[in-house]
Amino acid sequence: MQFELTKTYLEQLKAAIQDAHAQFILDQIAELHAADIAEILDALNKYEAEYLYQLIEEEEKAADVLIELEDERREELLSSLSSKEIADQVIENIESDDAADVIGELSEEKKEEVISHIENQEQASDIVDLLQYDENTAGGLMAKEMVVVNQNWTITHCLREMRKQAEDLDDVYAVYVIDDDHKLLGLLSLSKMLVSPSSAIISDIYDKELQSVTTDEEAEEVGNIMDKYDLIVLPVVDESGVLQGRITIDDVVEVIKEEAEKDYQMASGISEDVESTDSILDLTRARLPWLMIGLVGGILGAKVIGAFDIHENIEMALFIPLIAAMGGNVGVQSAAIVVQGLANKSIGVDSIFEKLIKELGVALLNGLICSVLILSIAMALGYGIFLSLTVGIALLSVIVFAALFGTFVPLVLDRYDIDPALATGPFITTVNDILGLMLYFLIGQMVALII
Amino acid sequence: MQFELTKTYLEQLKAAIQDAHAQFILDQIAELHAADIAEILDALNKYEAEYLYQLIEEEEKAADVLIELEDERREELLSSLSSKEIADQVIENIESDDAADVIGELSEEKKEEVISHIENQEQASDIVDLLQYDENTAGGLMAKEMVVVNQNWTITHCLREMRKQAEDLDDVYAVYVIDDDHKLLGLLSLSKMLVSPSSAIISDIYDKELQSVTTDEEAEEVGNIMDKYDLIVLPVVDESGVLQGRITIDDVVEVIKEEAEKDYQMASGISEDVESTDSILDLTRARLPWLMIGLVGGILGAKVIGAFDIHENIEMALFIPLIAAMGGNVGVQSAAIVVQGLANKSIGVDSIFEKLIKELGVALLNGLICSVLILSIAMALGYGIFLSLTVGIALLSVIVFAALFGTFVPLVLDRYDIDPALATGPFITTVNDILGLMLYFLIGQMVALII
Repeated sequence: MQFELTKTYLEQLKAAIQDAHAQFILDQIAELHAADIAEILDALNKYEAEYLYQLIEEEEKAADVLIELEDERREELLSSLSSKEIADQVIENIESDDAADVIGELSEEKKEEVISHIENQEQASDIVDLLQYDENTAGGLMAKEMVVVNQNWTITHCLREMRKQAEDLDDVYAVYVIDDDHKLLGLLSLSKMLVSPSSAIISDIYDKELQSVTTDEEAEEVGNIMDKYDLIVLPVVDESGVLQGRITIDDVVEVIKEEAEKDYQMASGISEDVESTDSILDLTRARLPWLMIGLVGGILGAKVIGAFDIHENIEMALFIPLIAAMGGNVGVQSAAIVVQGLANKSIGVDSIFEKLIKELGVALLNGLICSVLILSIAMALGYGIFLSLTVGIALLSVIVFAALFGTFVPLVLDRYDIDPALATGPFITTVNDILGLMLYFLIGQMVALII
Repeated sequence: MQFELTKTYLEQLKAAIQDAHAQFILDQIAELHAADIAEILDALNKYEAEYLYQLIEEEEKAADVLIELEDERREELLSSLSSKEIADQVIENIESDDAADVIGELSEEKKEEVISHIENQEQASDIVDLLQYDENTAGGLMAKEMVVVNQNWTITHCLREMRKQAEDLDDVYAVYVIDDDHKLLGLLSLSKMLVSPSSAIISDIYDKELQSVTTDEEAEEVGNIMDKYDLIVLPVVDESGVLQGRITIDDVVEVIKEEAEKDYQMASGISEDVESTDSILDLTRARLPWLMIGLVGGILGAKVIGAFDIHENIEMALFIPLIAAMGGNVGVQSAAIVVQGLANKSIGVDSIFEKLIKELGVALLNGLICSVLILSIAMALGYGIFLSLTVGIALLSVIVFAALFGTFVPLVLDRYDIDPALATGPFITTVNDILGLMLYFLIGQMVALII
């Protein structure tokens, strides 16, 4: 029942495009959802995608496909349309938030041309209004289409007005109640409207408890609020409480997902938002920065090892990989738990100091277990008392240090409004590696003095 | 405007609970949303939470708070209620999906007791029906509350029926159209209903294009479908197409988030779903497995270094951290891109072979840049031609090998239905570290022979 883009399907389609076999292609995509057609277009090359896109007869469907495309493919297709075509065929058929996104991607010149071609004046001014907001704020996420009723109306009056307003809407998820100054007062639930007599006045039956955000609220925070309060649609107001628009959760799911993915990419050392389908050059560029930091770290590591006279205790070289890896690993673990806690707002109200004390407990427990294990194993494998003791003590020190450092850095970054996920990335891992090596050789010197 | 749980606020509340200052506490929480009260209860200790929970006068509010709590806290509070209290005060006041979740967490014995105490027979049978589904399937996510109309009804008839059905509903997000056999046919949009004459027959105006899933569809796939098609609510049918329930996106956001977080946790080496507020013992248990693998890897690393006679080329020890780190880093990067592509279904339709060829391109480009850089830097720092050449060649080999390995492993895991994110975790990183070291020393021997 669900559409799945297979290789065979795609090859058939590519061959049909090659042969300009239009009817076959139309039959293939006739029953497909816009999101599925967009998936196909993203998988074709530029020429094939343009050919297929031109074939879509229904304007509304074509417009829906366009907004589902990857950014690059959309830009390509849009550049083959005139400003008037964009206004008439695309913008007229999509909701204001999508329209603002599409127009926002155009050049300044084309932007103005397209807007001047929009026939519906109200739609044009809605879009101009939406374009002023940063895309990472509530204003940038919201749409203007919504059903709004005045608190003084009766249900009968409401229904009449709703009928007018609803013609432009795909669907109604909430009915907002405002006063004469357009200030948002609350929500009229459809169930309440259905069960009340038609002469009832809205102000007597609407729900005054509702969450709202201002236009400048950050997109990430909008996601948190909708997630926390299980909201499907969230109204947006300006500073004086006047209703400006609404955000539906499907637009916010992207934000929530991207946020989680960004953390993942940072932890994996990928610096840009890349996908496996991107070009080799893009993929290289996204990955090189971590490798550069790793390179610098490796050279510093060489300097650290060189600074301590390795000739005196050559066998210490054997456990360099262990010490370096464990420092990095523990640091990333600690930082990841903090980062996730901050993202989920589940980090609790303890101070940084209390969190460090707790992390010290975890690190001591982990460290002692690992330390005793490596000491016993190294002894059993015959590495001798000096090396075994050095590795054991160093491992405990490295684990405790890396854990505290890994907890401390993201908390401090967060306090200064820098993305704490940076702390799970290359920089801190590398710093932990090097400091771990220094601790290892310092402890080696101390153990050598004692034994 | 948004509630924020501060330390001062919490301390005030704790003091008031200590003094059994009930009225003060009630004033404090009177205006708060259930999700906010739940946040407070999660931050209190068991005794304090029980005291505060008992204070909430409104049954519906108390029930809403309960379903927003962390699992452990909810279990504690539920264990202080009798089966009859759970049925009357909690279950009667929440939707069927939440009711099934709450009852599903109880012991077998208590489960039956609670169900036998539910007075509304339809509600009881709905819950029994929902309890049979695995919580990670569409059946486990769906709720029974929805508005359903027959295709043969007129709009007037519809409105009358909807009025009856809507009384039990918080809100109406979709009206489903069924035939006489209860088979799902489509969707009646509220805007369509508002603009059609009241004598119109549903079968003439409803929307036949709709997405649905069967009860056994995996939760993750439900998330993908709702995300891809921008759905706010998704109907669930059984194998013969009979409408069984609906899933709203707020329940799926959790699934989408958890999926992304799981990948992140694996990449960061945390093996269980832990939060920073968990106990020291839980946190240690979640982190120890990676550290153990790292430990084993470190010992194997020592064996590898020992196997090659390091005494002959002591200076090779200097670049051990570089080689080990880069192998791990590149492997994680490659695997992360594949894992994210698989999760987003954006991985494209190329075969594994084609993906490896592409990754080879990226790796050669990254590897050559890093290799030439390290060769020049090592020469410039006076590490001599043997060591510089060895490190340069080894680095290129390690980067290419780790990239191919990092791409190959998650793709193979996915083909065998094993979570590909495993490949970004400790096991593969450690394998890459060790194989990188072996390559390094092998190349060292070869370079020594040639020079």
